[in-house]
Parts: sequence; C-alpha cells; structure tokens
Amino acid sequence: MHRVKVRVVEDALDANNTIARANRDDFDRAGVAVANLMGAPGAGKTALLEYVLSDLGGVRAGVLEGDVQGTLDADRLASLHVPVTQLQTGDGFGGECHLDANMVRSALPSIPLSDIDLLIIENVGNLVCPAEFRVGEDARVMVASITEGEDKPLKYPLMFRACELVIVNKIDLLGHVDFDMDRFLHHLDAVHPGVSVLLTSARTGEGIGELRAWFAGLPQRVGAAV
Amino acid sequence: MHRVKVRVVEDALDANNTIARANRDDFDRAGVAVANLMGAPGAGKTALLEYVLSDLGGVRAGVLEGDVQGTLDADRLASLHVPVTQLQTGDGFGGECHLDANMVRSALPSIPLSDIDLLIIENVGNLVCPAEFRVGEDARVMVASITEGEDKPLKYPLMFRACELVIVNKIDLLGHVDFDMDRFLHHLDAVHPGVSVLLTSARTGEGIGELRAWFAGLPQRVGAAV
Repeated sequence: MHRVKVRVVEDALDANNTIARANRDDFDRAGVAVANLMGAPGAGKTALLEYVLSDLGGVRAGVLEGDVQGTLDADRLASLHVPVTQLQTGDGFGGECHLDANMVRSALPSIPLSDIDLLIIENVGNLVCPAEFRVGEDARVMVASITEGEDKPLKYPLMFRACELVIVNKIDLLGHVDFDMDRFLHHLDAVHPGVSVLLTSARTGEGIGELRAWFAGLPQRVGAAV
Repeated sequence: MHRVKVRVVEDALDANNTIARANRDDFDRAGVAVANLMGAPGAGKTALLEYVLSDLGGVRAGVLEGDVQGTLDADRLASLHVPVTQLQTGDGFGGECHLDANMVRSALPSIPLSDIDLLIIENVGNLVCPAEFRVGEDARVMVASITEGEDKPLKYPLMFRACELVIVNKIDLLGHVDFDMDRFLHHLDAVHPGVSVLLTSARTGEGIGELRAWFAGLPQRVGAAV
C-alpha cells in the first residue's frame, strides 16, 4: 500500500519534471531568465518584490503571481507598472498549496515573454510542497523571515536545500524577537553548505541593493550558462 | 481531465473523512477531547503549547506532534512531562505538508489515551492543506502571528473558516511591524463571522491565561456535547 503511494507520487513528480522542462525550453527560446520565489506565508515575498521591481536598472521584469485565492499580491505589484499575471490554485476544492509545472504552463500565453528579460514567479506561501515541484525556473530563491525562528532549516530541509539563494528577511526585528542569527546560519550550513545568503529588511531597505543586483544579474548569469 | 482531477481529490477527502470519523469514535470511547492546532511555520504553535501545557489545572494532556522531519518540537515539549508522540510525514519523498486521518490513525497505538483527557495535535506548519484534512478532532484552532500580515484571512480563507478559535500571536511586536489589528479582525470577520479570537504573546505571556482556560475547558465542553 505504502509502496504504491510512493510510486504514484514519483510518477506525478516525473510528469511534473517533463512539463517543467518544456516550460524551461520556452523560457530559453524567449531569452527570459526565471526565478521561483518561495517562502512561508507572511515571510515578506511580496514586499521584497515591490522593492526589487521598483528599480532593476535596464532589466525588464514580469511577475507570475501564485495564490490560493484572491488578487491581493498582484494588485500590490500592478502599481509598479510591470506585467503581472495572476494564477489561482483554489479552483473548486480547498486549493493547491503550491504551483506546479502544468499550472505555470497554462499561464504562459498570458505572460508577455517577448517583452521581458526576467520572470519572477511568486509561489504559494508554504515551506513544503513548492520545493518538490519544479516549474521550469533557472533559479530558486527562498525568503525566511527571522520571526519564523532559527530552527526552520532543520524542520524544512528540502526547501532550504532546493534553493540557490536564501533571503533572511525582517532583520529590523532582530532586537525584538528571540532569534540567534549565528545559530540560524549554522543550521542552514548544515542542510545546504555554501548556499548564498542575503540579509534584508523590507521595512528599512537594508540589503535591498544587493537583492536588486542579484535579480538584475540573473538574465546575464543564465545567458552565460545556456 | 480537470473534472477527473476534482473527482480524485473528492474521493481522497471522502476516504479521509471516513477514517477521521473512526478516529473520533476511538477518542470519544476513551473520553479524550482532541484539538487540531494549525498555523504557518513559525507562527508560534509550539511556544504557545509550552505555555499551555505547563499549567492545565487538573486536565491531563498529551500531544501528537506532526513534523515533516526531525523531533525538535517534540523534544521541546518532552521536558514538560506530558506524553508526546512524534509523527513524521517526510517518509521517502519530500514530505507531506499536512497530517491526514490515516497518519493520525497509525499513531493511535502510541498515544496513552486512557491516561489523558485532552490530546492536542500540532499539525505541520502550513495554511492550506491542513484545513482540508480532518483527523478526528473535536475542535480546530489556528495560530496567526501578526508578523504574517493583516491580509492573511483573505489569502487563506479556508484555514480561517475551518477553525473554532483563532489565536492572534506575537502581539508584543505590535509597535514594531506594519500590522493594523482592526483591519485584520475586519478581514477575519468577513471570512468567518463570529469566530472566537484570543490575542496572545508567547514572549510576554499576555493572553496565556485565557488560552489555558480555553484548552482546559475543552474536555468538559466536548463531553457535554457528546
């Protein structure tokens, strides 16, 4: 019984990877670098995106916004005059807790790929399933806010291991919460040695320059690798 | 294709509900009231549990601790001298993002039901799927921390609608984050009119007395209803 379940899950992930590769091919053909932005609900993904998108130098960005329901985040970003496409996962039943490659594929016709260099996909807030489903991205980025606690890399290792960049957000609250940054970084290093880390605050703007530079440089880094 | 998917999901939820009812019958027979504690990663579920379990008057409590991986939370609670049973969902593949009725059923033999009056099940940190899977509980409780933002009831309405009590946690940070309590409560009232709300801080202890009273009173409230 259990073995059957594992096989069904593996088949589903295989099918997802096949569609993800098709998405990736389409993104490559269009010359668009793609980042998959993940993190817990309320980690600050949208707030950081607002900062990043407001000044990316000459890089033309677009956003694919994944939510269970509603268009709150898409509405927040729309005022920045970048193309935002909304994907809702809450269709009929309680809602999917992550984006998968097929959902992203279904949204492709609505994304102006020929007008952008960089697509940022904001995933559903969740530290488990988004890490299991590739969507055709070049890079995976996660936002961990310090209010979530220093133990999170140990509790959700797959998520912290799946990404190329870990953004440690809300560092303006460092004096107000029980969070030991050294211990967090030690845990992070245990599950993903050498991963890039940026410390940010969407409230004070700390670290936002480096974050913008990371995203602005992604198309060039991806283009050099293709 | 889509209709088939919806039917498969509905069948899975039906099967889950059947097992959840069997769990509930076993809990009722043992005279144990059961609360399903849900919330985002880092909302403060375990910290609040530490406070609640340290003084429940004469009520004998046990905990079923759901995690993707590791025993960090169970270890924290074990020092309180209540029986703690660990359930890990990360078996073989990336891990389930929620507990379901069958997982809880598999743990029943390890829970000393005859020695407790109250079982608190700490679910996996996630605002989507835990709301869809009943596990045989009498009451569902969710923890929303103010650092997650005031928009969360609108973004995860099923979760806020599924529970009998919403704990608004980390209120010690009210002066340090952009969070408008009135707006949060307005959004909450829009998705779940009349739901019980408790404001707490696991750091200052504010609201903990009321929270203890809520949990300590659950066996009596459930018993009166049986």
